[in-house]
Amino acid sequence: MTPTSPARVLIRGTGLIGTSLGIALTRAGYHVTLSDPSPTAERLARDLRAGTIARAHDEPPGLVVVAAPPDVVAEVVADSLGRWPQATVTDVASVKGAVLQGVCARGADAARYVGGHPMAGRERSGAGHARGDLFEGRAWVVVPHADSAAAALEAVTRCARDVGSVVSVMDAETHDAAVATVSHLPQVVASLVAAQLRSLDEGALSLAGQGVRDVTRIAASDARLWTQILAGNAEAVLDVLGRVHTDLGELLTALGGLGGSASTADHDAVGSLEVVNRMITHGNVGHARIPGKHGAAPAAYAPVTAVVPDTPGALARLLTDVGEAGVNLEDLRIDHGLGQPFGLAEIMVVPAAVERLQQALAERGWRVLD
Amino acid sequence: MTPTSPARVLIRGTGLIGTSLGIALTRAGYHVTLSDPSPTAERLARDLRAGTIARAHDEPPGLVVVAAPPDVVAEVVADSLGRWPQATVTDVASVKGAVLQGVCARGADAARYVGGHPMAGRERSGAGHARGDLFEGRAWVVVPHADSAAAALEAVTRCARDVGSVVSVMDAETHDAAVATVSHLPQVVASLVAAQLRSLDEGALSLAGQGVRDVTRIAASDARLWTQILAGNAEAVLDVLGRVHTDLGELLTALGGLGGSASTADHDAVGSLEVVNRMITHGNVGHARIPGKHGAAPAAYAPVTAVVPDTPGALARLLTDVGEAGVNLEDLRIDHGLGQPFGLAEIMVVPAAVERLQQALAERGWRVLD
Repeated sequence: MTPTSPARVLIRGTGLIGTSLGIALTRAGYHVTLSDPSPTAERLARDLRAGTIARAHDEPPGLVVVAAPPDVVAEVVADSLGRWPQATVTDVASVKGAVLQGVCARGADAARYVGGHPMAGRERSGAGHARGDLFEGRAWVVVPHADSAAAALEAVTRCARDVGSVVSVMDAETHDAAVATVSHLPQVVASLVAAQLRSLDEGALSLAGQGVRDVTRIAASDARLWTQILAGNAEAVLDVLGRVHTDLGELLTALGGLGGSASTADHDAVGSLEVVNRMITHGNVGHARIPGKHGAAPAAYAPVTAVVPDTPGALARLLTDVGEAGVNLEDLRIDHGLGQPFGLAEIMVVPAAVERLQQALAERGWRVLD
Repeated sequence: MTPTSPARVLIRGTGLIGTSLGIALTRAGYHVTLSDPSPTAERLARDLRAGTIARAHDEPPGLVVVAAPPDVVAEVVADSLGRWPQATVTDVASVKGAVLQGVCARGADAARYVGGHPMAGRERSGAGHARGDLFEGRAWVVVPHADSAAAALEAVTRCARDVGSVVSVMDAETHDAAVATVSHLPQVVASLVAAQLRSLDEGALSLAGQGVRDVTRIAASDARLWTQILAGNAEAVLDVLGRVHTDLGELLTALGGLGGSASTADHDAVGSLEVVNRMITHGNVGHARIPGKHGAAPAAYAPVTAVVPDTPGALARLLTDVGEAGVNLEDLRIDHGLGQPFGLAEIMVVPAAVERLQQALAERGWRVLD
């Protein structure tokens, strides 16, 4: 706890994020009180050591964090600004423009409001999955507006840092456009692809490889929460989804022009292949821009692939041998075989270490793929 | 090598798949000869021990495997059927209807042709990435047609099994529809999403989390190859992409009806939220159908999450401790923090083992997230 931390924080809403934040702030030395429309949710959060249940006669909080469902956040923020006229108020909703608009529309004293978005969502939701470490090392976007007071910005930033987050500051419009592209768009396409698997027969499903698994992993996300998120960021999502819809339409036209067969190239519509090729190439370019490990510039790691039998401890032995070879593992991906009692471990290392590691592992008896 | 293996296999085309297959078949005891329009590619494959370079006076092969680029496969299959009138001919193209159509259109003796598709692609291509183990534990779809001879089907199936693949048999139309959904569709959406990252500014990109990374991983794939694959399966891809295009259009209309703000629910178009919610829910359902590890039924593993410092050997020590706790690791995912010298290891185990493992790891000094 830094000496200037606002001693008292009230968290309104004790779902996954609110409860996790309560646990983290309590550990950091804050005095945390909790409230939730559901008495059961309040008590569960308290039992998870997220703080004490707020009461009418409590000292007023210095900071109110609204962690309510997205569609009621503006209402609860405006209410909080009115009830505690000295407090800074923030929220953790993943969409910021609609909240700010809603707060202003309610005539609240918005100078003490600074929005926030901890990017620590999971495929799970609810206090039962709360963790005090949820925010460590994660981005927490702090979103002031034109009239935000400097002290409010500082209080929210400090809170985010005190739970281990990496703070970036941007305005609501910039934030909403960014998450529409890096978070909401991937969620939509993952869901759309997964939806196509509903009616597939078993034989076709059995051909599912690592690609479709990766693309659809987040399709397991909570439907109620995501309906609110997408609805709340409708404008920015419409913008980027509209571009993808156009690109997809162009691709459909191009594929239609190919007449269903690449081997009979005679009746191609001129330019069709160029459209298909351009789409993949643009994807290559965009993919290469994703920042690398720990937020560093994208690094070109090279894979060393070893066969790991499906027996207890095998993967640990492999990684011990990697460590003993003096090579630092940068990333690791497990690729499961189909109907086979083993998997492939793809160990990402700096390119200069590939050969050395391959040799070292082979000497230790591992089947290393060439 | 099984006693009845066709002793002599000719592989036409020595890229990633052809060279890998040559290495695997040579190891399995087959006598492999290689040919490729590029003398350099031929010699590289030979140097990688994929076989010997084919010569005019060679004994005729019992099996010809055409591993040429998709757009010339039909031509090379038809040529092979004509040149070696006793040989079974197969191919490894990831699209089967167009090849079969092309072979028949050329008036070839198609009874000796049985298609094949080893599902062992990688984000990389070229003989330089070839590996003799590429096919182990992978699905290899064997695709006979109405006029295929039983002996041809048997020879191709045996070849696939001899390199460790799990064979499934389906007709060309069924195969093409299946891969359009489980392979080509994910590739297209991964590329379309990644393409949207091209023009994003650094601040927005820095918010990229694990979700967009997973969704776009395969966007790094080879553009030339994928242009041919998509063009070659245009009809089936059009079918499934058309459905996604329609779903996306419906979603756009629904989001447009939400008027850009969820907080001002008054002017919603009735039914809009239902459309958004349905899309995510359908994704949940489809996602749950993806087969689990080793092709088994989807299993509900539960995660135990531990903090792993970014120091050599840390992950290995963690997994050693998992093994010593007597718990079998079913899957593992590394989630990298942002600007922090550690990552989170999500260890998937059977639900009954979660508590035991959490305790055991905590006792051994690991920070286990609750």
